[in-house]
Amino acid sequence: MINHFCKHPLWEVSGQLAAVAGGARPADLVITHANLVNVCTKEILADISVAISAGRIALVGDASHCIGEGTQVVDAEGRYLAPGFLDGHIHVESSMMSAGEYARAVIPHGTTGIYMDPHEICNVLGLPGVQCMLDDAARTPLKAMMTTPSCVPAVPGFEDTGSHIGPEDVAETMEWDTCVGLGEMMNFPGILSSSEETHAITGNTLKAGKIVTGHYSLPENGRGLNAYIASGVRCCHESTRAEDALAKMRLGMYAMFREGSAWHDLKVVAKSITEQPVDTRFAVLISDDTHPHTLSSQGHLDHIVRRAVAEGIDVLTAIQMVTINCAQCFQMDHDLGSVAPGKCADLVLLDNLADLNITKVWIDGDLVAENGSLVGEFAPYTYPEWATRSIHIRDTITPETFRIPAKPEHIAADGTVTVRAIEVIPARVGDYERHVALTVQDGLLESDVKQDVLKTAVFERHHNTGKKGFGFVKGFGIRCGAMASTVAHDAHNLLVIGTNDEDMALAANTLIECGGGMCAVQNGKVLGLVALPIAGLMSDKPMQEMADIVAGLEEAWKEIGCSMPSPFMTMALIPLACLPELRLTDRGLVDCNRFCFVDIEV
Amino acid sequence: MINHFCKHPLWEVSGQLAAVAGGARPADLVITHANLVNVCTKEILADISVAISAGRIALVGDASHCIGEGTQVVDAEGRYLAPGFLDGHIHVESSMMSAGEYARAVIPHGTTGIYMDPHEICNVLGLPGVQCMLDDAARTPLKAMMTTPSCVPAVPGFEDTGSHIGPEDVAETMEWDTCVGLGEMMNFPGILSSSEETHAITGNTLKAGKIVTGHYSLPENGRGLNAYIASGVRCCHESTRAEDALAKMRLGMYAMFREGSAWHDLKVVAKSITEQPVDTRFAVLISDDTHPHTLSSQGHLDHIVRRAVAEGIDVLTAIQMVTINCAQCFQMDHDLGSVAPGKCADLVLLDNLADLNITKVWIDGDLVAENGSLVGEFAPYTYPEWATRSIHIRDTITPETFRIPAKPEHIAADGTVTVRAIEVIPARVGDYERHVALTVQDGLLESDVKQDVLKTAVFERHHNTGKKGFGFVKGFGIRCGAMASTVAHDAHNLLVIGTNDEDMALAANTLIECGGGMCAVQNGKVLGLVALPIAGLMSDKPMQEMADIVAGLEEAWKEIGCSMPSPFMTMALIPLACLPELRLTDRGLVDCNRFCFVDIEV
Repeated sequence: MINHFCKHPLWEVSGQLAAVAGGARPADLVITHANLVNVCTKEILADISVAISAGRIALVGDASHCIGEGTQVVDAEGRYLAPGFLDGHIHVESSMMSAGEYARAVIPHGTTGIYMDPHEICNVLGLPGVQCMLDDAARTPLKAMMTTPSCVPAVPGFEDTGSHIGPEDVAETMEWDTCVGLGEMMNFPGILSSSEETHAITGNTLKAGKIVTGHYSLPENGRGLNAYIASGVRCCHESTRAEDALAKMRLGMYAMFREGSAWHDLKVVAKSITEQPVDTRFAVLISDDTHPHTLSSQGHLDHIVRRAVAEGIDVLTAIQMVTINCAQCFQMDHDLGSVAPGKCADLVLLDNLADLNITKVWIDGDLVAENGSLVGEFAPYTYPEWATRSIHIRDTITPETFRIPAKPEHIAADGTVTVRAIEVIPARVGDYERHVALTVQDGLLESDVKQDVLKTAVFERHHNTGKKGFGFVKGFGIRCGAMASTVAHDAHNLLVIGTNDEDMALAANTLIECGGGMCAVQNGKVLGLVALPIAGLMSDKPMQEMADIVAGLEEAWKEIGCSMPSPFMTMALIPLACLPELRLTDRGLVDCNRFCFVDIEV
Repeated sequence: MINHFCKHPLWEVSGQLAAVAGGARPADLVITHANLVNVCTKEILADISVAISAGRIALVGDASHCIGEGTQVVDAEGRYLAPGFLDGHIHVESSMMSAGEYARAVIPHGTTGIYMDPHEICNVLGLPGVQCMLDDAARTPLKAMMTTPSCVPAVPGFEDTGSHIGPEDVAETMEWDTCVGLGEMMNFPGILSSSEETHAITGNTLKAGKIVTGHYSLPENGRGLNAYIASGVRCCHESTRAEDALAKMRLGMYAMFREGSAWHDLKVVAKSITEQPVDTRFAVLISDDTHPHTLSSQGHLDHIVRRAVAEGIDVLTAIQMVTINCAQCFQMDHDLGSVAPGKCADLVLLDNLADLNITKVWIDGDLVAENGSLVGEFAPYTYPEWATRSIHIRDTITPETFRIPAKPEHIAADGTVTVRAIEVIPARVGDYERHVALTVQDGLLESDVKQDVLKTAVFERHHNTGKKGFGFVKGFGIRCGAMASTVAHDAHNLLVIGTNDEDMALAANTLIECGGGMCAVQNGKVLGLVALPIAGLMSDKPMQEMADIVAGLEEAWKEIGCSMPSPFMTMALIPLACLPELRLTDRGLVDCNRFCFVDIEV
């Protein structure tokens, strides 16, 4: 695949590079005395110099003849020089940061390229929103390579999204220079059932010579996994057992070992390569979803490489897993993923291979980070108003909006009605359908704090349709107050949960006013607010500020009674109808085992 | 890169493959009870079945549910199932067989795909000739993937070829479905000196997203090799020392270890991976040039894999070197090089991993060879008349044609003239310039058998220009007779060597009459003749017949006094002006160190 993420395509500057390598023309930059992390041969080579010109590597070895007038020389003093790290699968939106701020956050950790699947913003704003994120990223040095969201909406017919992506949209984006493939094909049922539309989506990607990335989360490695891979899906980051990752690699699929903020698969999945002596070229490390707190306190791929080493993966193998293996997965290894002549000069300098502390980062031969901080600034980017005013709810929300009348014919002799409640499970993506008896008050169904059952609503927020769905959730432990979020997968409608209608209305209106985000309120007071005005998903504030603001929200959640870790993440999955068992969308309660709507009242 | 060598592109049949893998539709073929040579993870997996549909692999594992009415079942009975072998660099013309006959010869040896560089026919007939070879190959199951000849002519300005390939021609061929890249860029001086034309040739390949293959034969792994690789050359088969191959792999270049009929590099080059524990993903095994005798008596890539194992390379690594590593070099690993779902069903069944005896070969799911023989027949192909009548020599050749008058002013007192003679070296590509005193006879320079100095002529044979060059060679040991050849690299003009003018004329006219080839004559009698009417380079006779005919020619050479091994090969290099030291082309003697014409007489 042609790589468009470089200062100059190789064919424009190959003559210049040859001249530099030969000594006929001075290099722009020479890095001397490095211990080279050679990911091609999996070796450390001592006392290596690298000459760079036009953003590309001209020579690796003895570069003394490449130094001339105007050549900048950086003495690595025996530090370790490795290729820039590549994240093979990442949703930038999960960081809650704009693409630009995300770049600022991860580059100092050695990340020089990401394969991003912007399916959250695409659900809200469609391809124009995706284009905004790409524009935002393009002003930064980070190589933000886009895979087109493949499953928008995630579950057609059960929710209202801001957008829809069909095979023609996929074909259109394949023409974009920024597009390197298809985002995670979560619709494995569509693939397995030979759905024409689903195969047209993957097919239009293959036809363009680009990469189909995957999402196969079944613990089944026989006919289903084979059918999925046979359809042209090249990689998958959903292995949660070592045997799943091993099965994928054996079937020629790139197994992306995930170590995100919320999902820590690496501990188990690493065993697929540490417990048997297999060729590891199909193994890749990725983050999938990373929160600002993780980025600020632990790092990005540097942290994940450290984690891999802690799980027994040899450090050179682990570095291959974020460099050459990833580049080969995307068939971009001719330009990315190794420190070799002709490649883009995307480089990281590490103090040592024990703590993997990143000292310097170069992208296309420019120093972009040093000792943990970005070097230089990039142009500002302002998202257009349609992107930052993405809350379009038809009706004014008041406490009355949240009233749920009980159906008189369902009221039992003891004055209760049995309702379906979604019981969430801390730090797990699944939920349970529970049946709970609620005492009817003034003909209405209300939250019951004693039973830990809270009223929940989802408001369609993309097209002023006025659609709204109601239900109950269980398991958050809130005693008084309400929470709201416009991060509510995958449609990202406005989700509100609370113990009382007044706080629920306040929470909802707080977010409507600030353009979306997440908040927790109690007794008419906003205790915590993460404003995410970009599509209701992201902020343009920098990482540390975001980490602090999110920490403030977590505090607020505790204050109103929830002790769950990162409860806003668990909350955000309540509308995701592709997960079992019971979910609430703007169209109502969905039985996600049978895929049909069900009533609140049993 | 889009692969056009398959029954159906994946996007057309992915739904069908998913249905087969899932059991909803029966497979065309299921191979059961195989020991799978898994080149992805470098393991042998026992008792594996493979289901095939539409020429592609639908499932690897337990395929019992894929067997239905009409499914052919082949019990592998514990034999070893590996991906079809790929030859990453081969000149079919060297086999002296047409592409069709070459395919017939190599498929039973497990070869399912070749990356062919048809630069011999291109020198004679240009791209139309290349197209003929592709048409010839296309009727066979062999995947004959073309790399566009990059250096036609090899040494511009010093010889007359039938054709010329410039950057625009390269760009044009990049549009061909059969083209996967650029053939060996032998003009490394052009690359190293940043020649615009040379970089346009490689650049037009890179611009098309295709692969530039290399030829870097200098024993220099510093600035020159770096300049060459930095220019986008992805592989090279010219390493003759282990350190050269290792240097290339360390610089991210695919090192193709050559084991051809004439050049046996493997013994030495194998040490690059056997003597240090490096990642071997950049190591590939290739043949470059193979003669019919080698193919018939030893095999093709099966033989080379056996040779690799004999040199201490682990057998699984060796098989990776002719499968997945080669496919990754050409960025075609999404379709070729492994036994995995979605891939083309190009498979070989091996009795065992000790002698690597090939029992069956499938291409695109069709059984194409069994127990050493091709299964089925393919359509006939007739090369057009312009391709089989490629000898266009303006003047009738008679004994008088070969008269070389001595310049009176150069005749020494003893009646001799000192001439330059090309001294060939058995089984080596280089030669020496020798100065020899010849006694002038009747004012003419004649062969001197006592000194082993033979008169030599090269006739332009492409465009009736009447150009001819004369010189002397030394080292063949011929006592009486003459030899002629239209295989005379790279321009493939008519080359004649002999002890007397009558035999020289007979040799020349014998070839002119049969459309080209190689012959040896003595005293007015043709002792050996290999007719190669296709471009004067190839025959449409089958392998065994060709092996016998060539053996007959070798016998004839012996009869006239030459005991050199394969002397016709050494002879064929006499006009190749890109090799040192002294060469003879149709334009005259070339000093190949200084790149200028020189006189016969010193």
